[in-house]
Amino acid sequence: MFGIWLMLHVDRARLAARLSEMAMVGATGRGGVHRLALSDADRQARDLLDAWCRQKGFSLEVDTVGNMFASRTGRSSEAPPLLIGSHLDSQPNAGAYDGPVGVLCALEVLESLDDLDVETRQPVQVVNWTNEEGARFRPPLLASGVFAGIYDAEFALNCRDVEGIRFGDELQRIGYAGPRQPGWPISGYIEVHIEQGTVLEATGAVVGVVTGVVGIRDLQVTVVGEDTHAGPLDMRSRRDALLGAAEMIVAANALGLEHAPDSRVTVGRIAVPSDSHSVVPGLAEFTLDLRHPESNGLDSLEKAARERFQRIAHDRNLELRFKQMFEYPPVAFDISLRDEIRSAALGLGHPALDLPSRAGHDAWNMARVAPAAMIFIPCRDGISHNEREFAEFEHIVAAADVLLNTVASVTKSR
Amino acid sequence: MFGIWLMLHVDRARLAARLSEMAMVGATGRGGVHRLALSDADRQARDLLDAWCRQKGFSLEVDTVGNMFASRTGRSSEAPPLLIGSHLDSQPNAGAYDGPVGVLCALEVLESLDDLDVETRQPVQVVNWTNEEGARFRPPLLASGVFAGIYDAEFALNCRDVEGIRFGDELQRIGYAGPRQPGWPISGYIEVHIEQGTVLEATGAVVGVVTGVVGIRDLQVTVVGEDTHAGPLDMRSRRDALLGAAEMIVAANALGLEHAPDSRVTVGRIAVPSDSHSVVPGLAEFTLDLRHPESNGLDSLEKAARERFQRIAHDRNLELRFKQMFEYPPVAFDISLRDEIRSAALGLGHPALDLPSRAGHDAWNMARVAPAAMIFIPCRDGISHNEREFAEFEHIVAAADVLLNTVASVTKSR
Repeated sequence: MFGIWLMLHVDRARLAARLSEMAMVGATGRGGVHRLALSDADRQARDLLDAWCRQKGFSLEVDTVGNMFASRTGRSSEAPPLLIGSHLDSQPNAGAYDGPVGVLCALEVLESLDDLDVETRQPVQVVNWTNEEGARFRPPLLASGVFAGIYDAEFALNCRDVEGIRFGDELQRIGYAGPRQPGWPISGYIEVHIEQGTVLEATGAVVGVVTGVVGIRDLQVTVVGEDTHAGPLDMRSRRDALLGAAEMIVAANALGLEHAPDSRVTVGRIAVPSDSHSVVPGLAEFTLDLRHPESNGLDSLEKAARERFQRIAHDRNLELRFKQMFEYPPVAFDISLRDEIRSAALGLGHPALDLPSRAGHDAWNMARVAPAAMIFIPCRDGISHNEREFAEFEHIVAAADVLLNTVASVTKSR
Repeated sequence: MFGIWLMLHVDRARLAARLSEMAMVGATGRGGVHRLALSDADRQARDLLDAWCRQKGFSLEVDTVGNMFASRTGRSSEAPPLLIGSHLDSQPNAGAYDGPVGVLCALEVLESLDDLDVETRQPVQVVNWTNEEGARFRPPLLASGVFAGIYDAEFALNCRDVEGIRFGDELQRIGYAGPRQPGWPISGYIEVHIEQGTVLEATGAVVGVVTGVVGIRDLQVTVVGEDTHAGPLDMRSRRDALLGAAEMIVAANALGLEHAPDSRVTVGRIAVPSDSHSVVPGLAEFTLDLRHPESNGLDSLEKAARERFQRIAHDRNLELRFKQMFEYPPVAFDISLRDEIRSAALGLGHPALDLPSRAGHDAWNMARVAPAAMIFIPCRDGISHNEREFAEFEHIVAAADVLLNTVASVTKSR
């Protein structure tokens, strides 16, 4: 435990400058960024991080799936490093906070350790994970998944975007296909991230101590009817797949609300291949994203969705297919790291609150291989994946300070 | 009136051969065709029609928007020609009957007039209209609309497909930008087409005498909410544009059913730009296609749709925008041509039935400038704009025979 007089502080001005410079990379002009994984904008963001790290003399390494690591040496050359960081890629036309705030707070901590002459036992590494969002290459959390041994590097390199462009080819093109095999031992992982919800805001807490991540299960739902002309056929004889899908979307939302407050049910993508104003759609495909803190909660949401959709399909003379796209089981974060984060927040005088994450994060993958934890920053109106995403600079500084003190504490000799 | 012993007949074998050869152009391999306007497949279909016409010595002309005309001279060189035909372009992955059957029945009639030494007063012209479907270049019925003076040729030439490719450039590319100004005087227009509904099939009629075309009004509906992350935000705080659109699609269908049997209400296209499994969509756009035999029926459908959508938008804290894309007012076909068609059907011994068309056709545009009429062919299960579209060959022959006798009758000297 620190007393308040012993707490460390980051360099606010430097952090502010880096946040604004990074927000200009892939800026949409409306306060957001459009920085899809392995795009030219992603390359620019990486180049900027690289330049900052080199300036400070931190050694930089890139692994074979493009994850970037900047290291500050520790007293012991054998102790596995403590990893801190997040991601620089974004959703399409998204905010400037989701991801970069975690990478730049981590970099700020690395620099502050230098400035404050803090010696750590093990090395501390700042990481920028490739393709966290999964907006361009499915699945999300891809390259941290490779680091954690969930996927082979080959799997990631062979992923393709909607235009058929290969992850591995894009990685080569932007110059971030590194030599190092991902997956070396680490002593822990801590990630700063915006909450993307309203829990902290509603309670007035400044620092979120994340207890774990809810489980997420993603399904692809295909509704099959019959393409027909919009005019001549009697409306009662139609087998309208989009109409069926619309009823399912309404049913999915009702299902989520019935299982509030733990559940989230979302339809985020829909495709109607016939795509003509005068064709009654014979095929509609949509995604179904289920979130719940318990595995059996996911099972029960899926079961209920299948039953309701099946009833709709039956009533409308439609066929229905389900395909599971990916699943992240619920995880709990490391108790001892959570205690360290809470102590740091209290020591700094910031009101802290325990809460679960309902979004997937790279920390989820890391929790499989090392003690992991996250620090949440309040986020205005809970809006994220949107250009209007916003976090108070004071709250970002608070998270950086908490991370700095947590890192200093857990890397002390003991 | 003909007696049954005087009726003319087309060459069944030739018609069968031409239908199958044309169905191979742009064939999908599953019984349908994919022959979008001004595509390479459309060019091949045009080349085939051109070759058949040249073989028989019919003079061929192409106008500046790509409409093709094959002429057989009449006794009088001054009388405006009688136009017969339809279109060779198709919807995506559609049937082989919607369009080509009308062009090939018309060509068969031209050849049969030769074979049977029938002299006509005015010239008879077979027409293949460009971009009837509107699947590639909006609006549909584009080049017949230019011929009828509804659009300028420049308007058509500057239309662009979703990839931004210009109609005029594609027309040049496939070699069908002709020299003739569209819009010369004609004495009438008759089009053979599949019904695309089940009225003829249900009643056992073989020949449909089309009374007119219902009005069609197309709107673009934009639903605006807020892009947010699928996980953290409370589901009740969402402003989910796709959920609102889904409720509107369900409401639109209910509206159409309430106004049965005259109305058709269809949502055929939907787009969700955020397009991510983990983003609650903040924007959804869809088309609303309204069909009704009366103009005030269209008004009342649109009014009801706007009211219901507005209520849904209000309840879900969404904004709503409507944009009218195009409108075709209802038209009635020429009484005297309808009588001729009915007489020919009766003379040939084919059960005939009067019915309206609920789909747009080039005859709709032609009805503005000349006496126009249509002959419908029964179509299995009413399925159209689908690879499973099917019409009995016997029914196609019946329509060709009816067209032949109708043309012979209306072009007699009198």
